[in-house]
Amino acid sequence: MLSNTTRTQIKKGSHKAVFDPQALYDIIDESLIAHIAIEEDRGPVVIPMLAWRVDNKVYIHGAKNSRLLRTLKTGHKTCLTFTLFDGWVLARSAFHHSAHYRSAVVFGQFENIKDNHEKDRVLNHFIEHIAPGRTEEVRLSNNKELTATQVLAIELNEASVKIGRHCVNDDKEDLDLQTWAGILPYRTVIGPLEPCDDLDSSINLPDYSRAYKHRWYK
Amino acid sequence: MLSNTTRTQIKKGSHKAVFDPQALYDIIDESLIAHIAIEEDRGPVVIPMLAWRVDNKVYIHGAKNSRLLRTLKTGHKTCLTFTLFDGWVLARSAFHHSAHYRSAVVFGQFENIKDNHEKDRVLNHFIEHIAPGRTEEVRLSNNKELTATQVLAIELNEASVKIGRHCVNDDKEDLDLQTWAGILPYRTVIGPLEPCDDLDSSINLPDYSRAYKHRWYK
Repeated sequence: MLSNTTRTQIKKGSHKAVFDPQALYDIIDESLIAHIAIEEDRGPVVIPMLAWRVDNKVYIHGAKNSRLLRTLKTGHKTCLTFTLFDGWVLARSAFHHSAHYRSAVVFGQFENIKDNHEKDRVLNHFIEHIAPGRTEEVRLSNNKELTATQVLAIELNEASVKIGRHCVNDDKEDLDLQTWAGILPYRTVIGPLEPCDDLDSSINLPDYSRAYKHRWYK
Repeated sequence: MLSNTTRTQIKKGSHKAVFDPQALYDIIDESLIAHIAIEEDRGPVVIPMLAWRVDNKVYIHGAKNSRLLRTLKTGHKTCLTFTLFDGWVLARSAFHHSAHYRSAVVFGQFENIKDNHEKDRVLNHFIEHIAPGRTEEVRLSNNKELTATQVLAIELNEASVKIGRHCVNDDKEDLDLQTWAGILPYRTVIGPLEPCDDLDSSINLPDYSRAYKHRWYK
């Protein structure tokens, strides 16, 4: 069960709250992007970061001189939010229009991963997540590259999940209107792969589509 | 030209900074979701909100009892971030993997829109943005509904835009590896429309696809 602290308790739209940790994991795994906040003297700053999960932790990475990572590695209290937009609910009245979405809000503090073997392990997890099998194909990172890469981890201890997936909910007196009502779905699709200009044309095209729900091409 | 204050100046990856206001507008118009931060006693909180633009302002809305809106309407300093993920850059080395993305970070303070006519105007802009022509088809909001809706606006005065769109950038010594390298593109696609269960089957299916780059169906 996900924690239900005063902070993660969902007050608005509490019927959309979900307490299954797998729902949290699924949203993080599909999102790829975390919007992460830090507090500065002039107010909060929200930065989008690539983020991936291994077991019960979320990882982010970047260059050592990144302002965000320098702040977060000191244990600055933070919030990471993941959002997937799934479509519009088009009601017969303007007022009842709404959205289908899945979102997760995570609270906590990051820890700095110092060990290069551990960095290598979790970075390779990330590559496998976006392109299954690719760590067998690429040149893996050397020690110099791993040392230049800052990797931070946050434990998924305090989090809330919200899933909006209801259908049209019009007022009774609007049901006879001759207005189309229903869902306008959104999907994220991938591909086809675009080779870079200098690629040796004898190299086989890989297929990473098994990591994705939908692809653009046949 | 977008402002270049000490806060919006992009230090990391400054070659990706973009100063054309139209680039900011395009990212906001395509994003639909803003990740908005507020500061609370225990640290920052990032909430995803539907957000849309009219001229040089971004609007958000919700019910009057929403905690986020109650905080923001008092002039709380905030940050809104919009991010579009466009794909993976798959390099020959693990280290040079990166992402295609477009992001915008906006700083400022929201103002509360009190006038129901102005709320109606900007909410109808939002519906037209997601479903062109739909304000001619639906029952528009009445005064009671507009009064129950909180609408906040923020001027786009301080913002930065970052666009990552480079191709594979491998080390010279890795160019001879027999590893596929290139881009794995992501697209957001819409449709087809899904009617709600109780819809009168004689009502024509609308076509809102002109507001979107890609659709899922033929």
